[in-house]
Amino acid sequence: MSQNTNPYADESPAAVRKKIRAGKITGQTSGMCNGFAQANLIVLPREYAYDFLLFAQRNPKPCPVLEVSEAGDRLLHRIAQADIATDIPKYRIYRHGVLTDEVTDAAAFWRGDLVSFLIGCSFSFESELLEAGVAVRHIEENRNVPMYLTNLACDPAGVMHGNMVVSMRPLPPSQIVRAVTATAAMPRVHGTPVHIGDPAAIGIRDVAKPDFGEPVTINPGETPVFWACGVTPQSVVMASKPSFAITHAPGHMLITDVRNSLLKN
Amino acid sequence: MSQNTNPYADESPAAVRKKIRAGKITGQTSGMCNGFAQANLIVLPREYAYDFLLFAQRNPKPCPVLEVSEAGDRLLHRIAQADIATDIPKYRIYRHGVLTDEVTDAAAFWRGDLVSFLIGCSFSFESELLEAGVAVRHIEENRNVPMYLTNLACDPAGVMHGNMVVSMRPLPPSQIVRAVTATAAMPRVHGTPVHIGDPAAIGIRDVAKPDFGEPVTINPGETPVFWACGVTPQSVVMASKPSFAITHAPGHMLITDVRNSLLKN
Repeated sequence: MSQNTNPYADESPAAVRKKIRAGKITGQTSGMCNGFAQANLIVLPREYAYDFLLFAQRNPKPCPVLEVSEAGDRLLHRIAQADIATDIPKYRIYRHGVLTDEVTDAAAFWRGDLVSFLIGCSFSFESELLEAGVAVRHIEENRNVPMYLTNLACDPAGVMHGNMVVSMRPLPPSQIVRAVTATAAMPRVHGTPVHIGDPAAIGIRDVAKPDFGEPVTINPGETPVFWACGVTPQSVVMASKPSFAITHAPGHMLITDVRNSLLKN
Repeated sequence: MSQNTNPYADESPAAVRKKIRAGKITGQTSGMCNGFAQANLIVLPREYAYDFLLFAQRNPKPCPVLEVSEAGDRLLHRIAQADIATDIPKYRIYRHGVLTDEVTDAAAFWRGDLVSFLIGCSFSFESELLEAGVAVRHIEENRNVPMYLTNLACDPAGVMHGNMVVSMRPLPPSQIVRAVTATAAMPRVHGTPVHIGDPAAIGIRDVAKPDFGEPVTINPGETPVFWACGVTPQSVVMASKPSFAITHAPGHMLITDVRNSLLKN
């Protein structure tokens, strides 16, 4: 983990969440709290909860569910002792599929009928990749991971439908097999890649222009490798247009109290 | 798989389901359709579906969900092209948590508000155990696997609560590690053991008297190894008392069109 120079790399999740809650941290969380899992967030009114939970069951690679809150309860009790409305650095508010607000505190938007879904994040397997000797370009370049909307349709459930969002890490061919085997052990944080090679084959027109996050350098001879991404629920929200939704802003995750190593089989 | 002498071992799932549908097969399905996954069934009215799906999410070892039907639809479309009301050899009908009927055809009990949950079965990892050189006693003795109600409380969800049911395979100490690693690769069919050793530690008073299935021989020096079991939903139904439920009879599974090898990570 010598590549991790984040100033919060060695702080505890509880300490960093406290700073986030106080508004002292509002940026993206990659590299914070070494060894602890981070999670994506999608909050929906109770009337959509069954459809979304079934959507997640049918699409476990983009939507591996780590915790579901009780309706109306802002507090999580399983993966983190956290207030979901305040403990993420940046939130996005959607109404009928349209992004209407981006805020650092979602308490003012909270309602008694909201259910929070916390979804595994590929940040959790990046330490495994590094351990396996696989370079992670966006960490090397100190950027947010590049993410793309694909033409891979998810298996729909009720009103929920949409295409898969993927994250991309460019790899030399010699590291691809190790990247597959290292991530295979972690199905709760997206598991194995969904695509290796030509971006156009999954509907990505320009790999230099990600739909979320930031572009990274792809060196000559390197192959782009794509993993299912927990930003997929935002693509689903935009396509399915529920009356209301709160998500994390891409890259701005919930830092959990669960060690990455516990997410292995 | 030389130990498998079941007369239907080499038939296709579709052919065996047709015989089950016609009432020609009414017994337990262990050993049928070599290489194809079998599944546990729990059918509940739509009003309980969210609570049960969340219960399964919170308890993935006993309740790894393979498919959820649309409400009222008897047909499955993902793991098998099957009619869920007729293609299982034996069903149990529960009303308010009480077993009221055991039938070989559930069509007469079908209603427009029923949702079917198909759950992974440890039969799927037994071929992996045999491949890894691990003996499976109940196959050797041509019996149904012994299953026990434990004192391990599942994580509740809404009205759903109850204790875990486990299946048991006695192993010589030299085979336990291989049994753990072989099943670790298959989290969608219960994955690794939940307990190794003293049955009393998980509330089993007499290992010779299983609550479901049949007892098997435990030789001197062998250790009982326990895996989470898909009969757990029946324990949940008995504890949570939904107004109505249909389950498979223990050991009488849905034979799916999915190869066991596809349930690996």
